[in-house]
Amino acid sequence: MNNSDLTATLPGHSSGQNPSASTLFSVTGDDPAKRDAINRSISAHEALAALPGVRFAIDKTVLIVLHPGFELLDVAGPFHFLAATGATVEFVSTGPSDEPVPSGNGVTLMPTSTISDTFTAPEVLLVPGGDTGILLRDNQAMTELKRLGKEATYVTSVCSGSIALAAAGLLHGHRATSHWSVRHLLTGYGAIEVNERIVEDGNRLTAAGVTAGMDLGIRLVSYLCGEDLARFAVLGAEYAPKPPYDTGTPEKAGAALTNLSRNFLAPLEEELRAPVN
Amino acid sequence: MNNSDLTATLPGHSSGQNPSASTLFSVTGDDPAKRDAINRSISAHEALAALPGVRFAIDKTVLIVLHPGFELLDVAGPFHFLAATGATVEFVSTGPSDEPVPSGNGVTLMPTSTISDTFTAPEVLLVPGGDTGILLRDNQAMTELKRLGKEATYVTSVCSGSIALAAAGLLHGHRATSHWSVRHLLTGYGAIEVNERIVEDGNRLTAAGVTAGMDLGIRLVSYLCGEDLARFAVLGAEYAPKPPYDTGTPEKAGAALTNLSRNFLAPLEEELRAPVN
Repeated sequence: MNNSDLTATLPGHSSGQNPSASTLFSVTGDDPAKRDAINRSISAHEALAALPGVRFAIDKTVLIVLHPGFELLDVAGPFHFLAATGATVEFVSTGPSDEPVPSGNGVTLMPTSTISDTFTAPEVLLVPGGDTGILLRDNQAMTELKRLGKEATYVTSVCSGSIALAAAGLLHGHRATSHWSVRHLLTGYGAIEVNERIVEDGNRLTAAGVTAGMDLGIRLVSYLCGEDLARFAVLGAEYAPKPPYDTGTPEKAGAALTNLSRNFLAPLEEELRAPVN
Repeated sequence: MNNSDLTATLPGHSSGQNPSASTLFSVTGDDPAKRDAINRSISAHEALAALPGVRFAIDKTVLIVLHPGFELLDVAGPFHFLAATGATVEFVSTGPSDEPVPSGNGVTLMPTSTISDTFTAPEVLLVPGGDTGILLRDNQAMTELKRLGKEATYVTSVCSGSIALAAAGLLHGHRATSHWSVRHLLTGYGAIEVNERIVEDGNRLTAAGVTAGMDLGIRLVSYLCGEDLARFAVLGAEYAPKPPYDTGTPEKAGAALTNLSRNFLAPLEEELRAPVN
């Protein structure tokens, strides 16, 4: 097999200006079929960019906050779609820049910067959930979160990340959601609790638990890049979900399972409760 | 705020034997409300384990193969649910054990071991997709994949990961699926192409593109730990998806968008095509 790598001939891929930010595929060999495939992909890139309303966010920055104990899927779900916008996605740590941040399940992600060192007004600020009590107790991180939230075009969260936004004062008087088990705590921080999968109030977009981050990510793609690019990203991710069990909300799961899960999660609920003054 | 950490009082959390492997939540303070919350969580752990048919896979191993260019969401989706089984989840690299593995979008994950150093017969072997051509060209990794596939209780894949299973001879004569854009290539490796989100044939479970990994992960939880634990995990992840656009399959997206996406992905398709003998 010929080891020549034709990948760099895809326009933008080598310059960091890739407008569609698709997953890059390495290509080996230089036979006609492979050259033809690359030319088809280049033409598709161009056709995509030419669709009515489609634009790319290549001059924009998306900030995803990595706090110790974050939930990995809260990050990976929206990231998958936000990466398709062409924006620069930064993972900003609440700790040092050179230390991996441990998620709740132990898998770590390396930050690209820290929240304290970030002064770019982001197009999207996204706070994932997880063991969010740790973030709430980090006064410096909460101050930086408030600062960036005031500058962001879209202030967003997945799961219990909205409790951190609310505790930073960023949801005061705003309609918002969270993981179903802690959603009621939003009111203690002056937000208005809403039982919907994605809640949008002005530039605040909050998502329900964990998997709702994908629905949020797709909606943000539509705002940043147009609805046709969002439709394209949904097809690429084959996002036609078929949950094997229809127990994804308390209403669907019923009282017994919900009470079990609520009790299971009780320590998180207590940790995120607004202090009584 | 009192800094005493009560988390370790949750049974199993400190011993690594946590049967439910929920995200662990740190708890501060020792006021009665927090102590009560911890006791409620302990009781819920016990009630969960006592549900009919529920068992934990604490003596089992799940292997997720990290190959260069893997798709992050192909890993994070099923991992979220597989972590709930209590099994030991290993990220096995096709490269060195001490080097992070870059995903297609540049985010890296640290492996816990390498595929060559893994001799435990896994309960679940899972191959994610992404830039799967790199894996196909890695002869040593493919040999190890074949070895582990013969020993695994469940041989599974997400997205184009099934092409690697097929190229390793693990799907010969088996019904299987893949990402819609490369699914037809399965036949070139002796597998039987099926257009379904999850295809099960004996102990082979293959999932369609990217987001289908979550549906796969939930099904595996039901097999390893019983249906009630799967229902519990679905509620915890609030997995009641509402895709903002109904374009998640070629059938739903229509011919124009599908052709655009197929051309966009043409280099991957060419790279994964079975060699003609």
